[in-house]
Amino acid sequence: MRLSKFFLPVLKETPAEAKIISHQLMLRAGMVKQTGSGIYTWLPLGLRVLKKIENIVREEQNRAGAIELLMPTIQPADLWKESGRYDAYGKEMLRITDRHDREMLFGPTNEEVITDIFRSYVKSYKQLPLNLYHIQWKFRDEIRPRFGVMRGREFLMKDAYSFDVNEVEARKSYYKMFCAYLNTFSRMGLKAVPMRADTGPIGGDLSHEFIILAETGESEVFCDAELVNMPPPGLDLDFDSDLLGEFEKRTQYYAATEEMHDQTKFESEVPEERRVSARGIEVGHIFNFGTKYSEPMKAKVMTPEGKEAPVHMGSYGVGVSRLLGAIIEACHDDKGVIWPEEVAPFKSAVVNLRQGDEACDKACEDVYAKLRATGLDPMYDDRDDRPGAKLSTLELIGIPKAIVIGPRGLKNGVVEVKDRISGVTEEMSLDAALNKLTASA
Amino acid sequence: MRLSKFFLPVLKETPAEAKIISHQLMLRAGMVKQTGSGIYTWLPLGLRVLKKIENIVREEQNRAGAIELLMPTIQPADLWKESGRYDAYGKEMLRITDRHDREMLFGPTNEEVITDIFRSYVKSYKQLPLNLYHIQWKFRDEIRPRFGVMRGREFLMKDAYSFDVNEVEARKSYYKMFCAYLNTFSRMGLKAVPMRADTGPIGGDLSHEFIILAETGESEVFCDAELVNMPPPGLDLDFDSDLLGEFEKRTQYYAATEEMHDQTKFESEVPEERRVSARGIEVGHIFNFGTKYSEPMKAKVMTPEGKEAPVHMGSYGVGVSRLLGAIIEACHDDKGVIWPEEVAPFKSAVVNLRQGDEACDKACEDVYAKLRATGLDPMYDDRDDRPGAKLSTLELIGIPKAIVIGPRGLKNGVVEVKDRISGVTEEMSLDAALNKLTASA
Repeated sequence: MRLSKFFLPVLKETPAEAKIISHQLMLRAGMVKQTGSGIYTWLPLGLRVLKKIENIVREEQNRAGAIELLMPTIQPADLWKESGRYDAYGKEMLRITDRHDREMLFGPTNEEVITDIFRSYVKSYKQLPLNLYHIQWKFRDEIRPRFGVMRGREFLMKDAYSFDVNEVEARKSYYKMFCAYLNTFSRMGLKAVPMRADTGPIGGDLSHEFIILAETGESEVFCDAELVNMPPPGLDLDFDSDLLGEFEKRTQYYAATEEMHDQTKFESEVPEERRVSARGIEVGHIFNFGTKYSEPMKAKVMTPEGKEAPVHMGSYGVGVSRLLGAIIEACHDDKGVIWPEEVAPFKSAVVNLRQGDEACDKACEDVYAKLRATGLDPMYDDRDDRPGAKLSTLELIGIPKAIVIGPRGLKNGVVEVKDRISGVTEEMSLDAALNKLTASA
Repeated sequence: MRLSKFFLPVLKETPAEAKIISHQLMLRAGMVKQTGSGIYTWLPLGLRVLKKIENIVREEQNRAGAIELLMPTIQPADLWKESGRYDAYGKEMLRITDRHDREMLFGPTNEEVITDIFRSYVKSYKQLPLNLYHIQWKFRDEIRPRFGVMRGREFLMKDAYSFDVNEVEARKSYYKMFCAYLNTFSRMGLKAVPMRADTGPIGGDLSHEFIILAETGESEVFCDAELVNMPPPGLDLDFDSDLLGEFEKRTQYYAATEEMHDQTKFESEVPEERRVSARGIEVGHIFNFGTKYSEPMKAKVMTPEGKEAPVHMGSYGVGVSRLLGAIIEACHDDKGVIWPEEVAPFKSAVVNLRQGDEACDKACEDVYAKLRATGLDPMYDDRDDRPGAKLSTLELIGIPKAIVIGPRGLKNGVVEVKDRISGVTEEMSLDAALNKLTASA
């Protein structure tokens, strides 16, 4: 992508309304613009990252055997009256009346809609297990939206819903998502720690939050360093196998959010040198809630024993748009964002320090074409701007690797390669620079 | 994708509420489920097609130089009060009040929001031309939603907005989208005819609808056969060149929707043998409306002459979810959908006529693996079901090409290759069948 043909409105000043670093950097780097209170437009740079995150989530849901569909944003109130949650949900639900005075709402979550879909089509245990997910915009009418996309009102979420014939099978579905989540966050360059959680208004008896550790995290968390350091199950995991082992390998360690924390237990279970007390950001939450919705909504299946029984369900959420903020909170320095490669808006960049200089233009065009040919998804700063401004923008928007080409270097046959993650800048020949970038592709 | 691990709830009966063929087939083929009046859930099969259509639209917008961003579904009413449309828009606008009693709405279109984005960042003609688009869910509170996704309330739309320094440049942007649309619909296997249209509530002086001809179309259209038969500009079109020629090559011919039709003019301009009077479905609509929004909303740029002037705008819509219905209206027979290859939910299928038979299973698994390896995105019907049911489902969901494997054929060393588009079934060896499917990949 040539920046001269892109729309990247970076800001020089940090807007006063942004209180946390991810919000500040997203505004400054031209990733989002506030369109209403807690409601954002995703500008082209932000949208690129959002789509990369969404795609990793999708791939790992598919790998775990979940099937994608898409539920609408607007839901009829009737379904929520059936489950009993319409009155219970409170003011965070955005309630809407249409032109015929029918009650509707902007979905804050989708247990009711998916249960309605399930009961319309599935009648027998033979059609199970089933895990249906979607990635859709949701709305929660937060009383005080803040922290940019971290606590917005309109937000993008992946939510999956599992259906099983009984509790034993439902737990297996839960373990699958538990493992898929660890792989998902790991692919984004994040360390996400599963922590036993309160089930809240969703209900159920078993629930885990997935927490990213970041100094600027929203809440305090406590866990065992062994758990933090454990690698994810891995993309070659057989999701058809018994995953209880993978689950227990992790849940044997102490890990709790503020609300669930028990200091005495923490100290007795975890040796002092392994006690991690840190700040964290929730990026995923999974629930096993049995028949809480299937019972009132009469979503029943025929069991192998020939009896009708309410289906056992779980739900599994990932805050897709929230992850952008969370990743920035975990990955930045005082100059800007430092994107992990897998989610970077562009994997590489070419910066022309003197646009219009014949030798510079030629060298840049050549490198840009070669990077494109290798599928490296490069950005080319071909704008007519000062070198200093171009280099600050490069750091601000956090492209992992860049080749910087200027007239002085070219005369000596060298260009600069900048690595945003290591912070290292090296001089080398153009060919060596290209090799360096494409070798890691 | 193995159907045993997919969610494809086909219906045996045609639901009584569906009045038109596309709606009937989408329900029967398990593509959508109605969740509320005019509000649909996209089941896995339907979502696959929706994403393919969305992707073609995206690729052709990008090719024409438009830049993708994403505006929210919920918009503040204030912006619409600035443009003067808040009161004018009428009951089709879904108006919402949040917990703080602020007026909001579910966007039926995005001229106001994009103009607000533009004026926040762009100040000079040097930053132009600019064309920003997004693909997002919209809501229009139709008094009588009907025809399934063809006239739903919540629908997916691509809308692009161009910004230019003056009317001359704005026309160039209009021609770009005009050409991009012809390429877009052609890639979907459709013949879309551009017709001069009324500008309606969007405003402006120049507007075209893109109409697909289909016997079951919603309205009557009149045009010259020369225009219908003209090939699209082509994917190698240089969008930086002057496209007036491409535009005039087509607009020289008579083409009008019912509202714009003039029978006398039609008869005098078009020789009798070339007069096409048919039914059509609108799938795209483009507008050049100058300063209608930029003036009241004060979206101004500095001109080359050093004066401030309101920016000239156009908007360009494609009904992404509507296209599914439109394609089915144009491409079906009495057995089901006949997907054009580019938008088919799966490009090919393997049907096992006797699941559990060792030879059949082995041959099918082998073919399925080979098709996957060629990137043909195959579906494998590995369910335990009757051969007749499997073959009707195959026809109903309209997969372009299938290899059907049964025990009797295998003994004689042959399988069947079914071509949904030509309707031809041929017997041949397994290798020949594989060659036939992969040759066209």
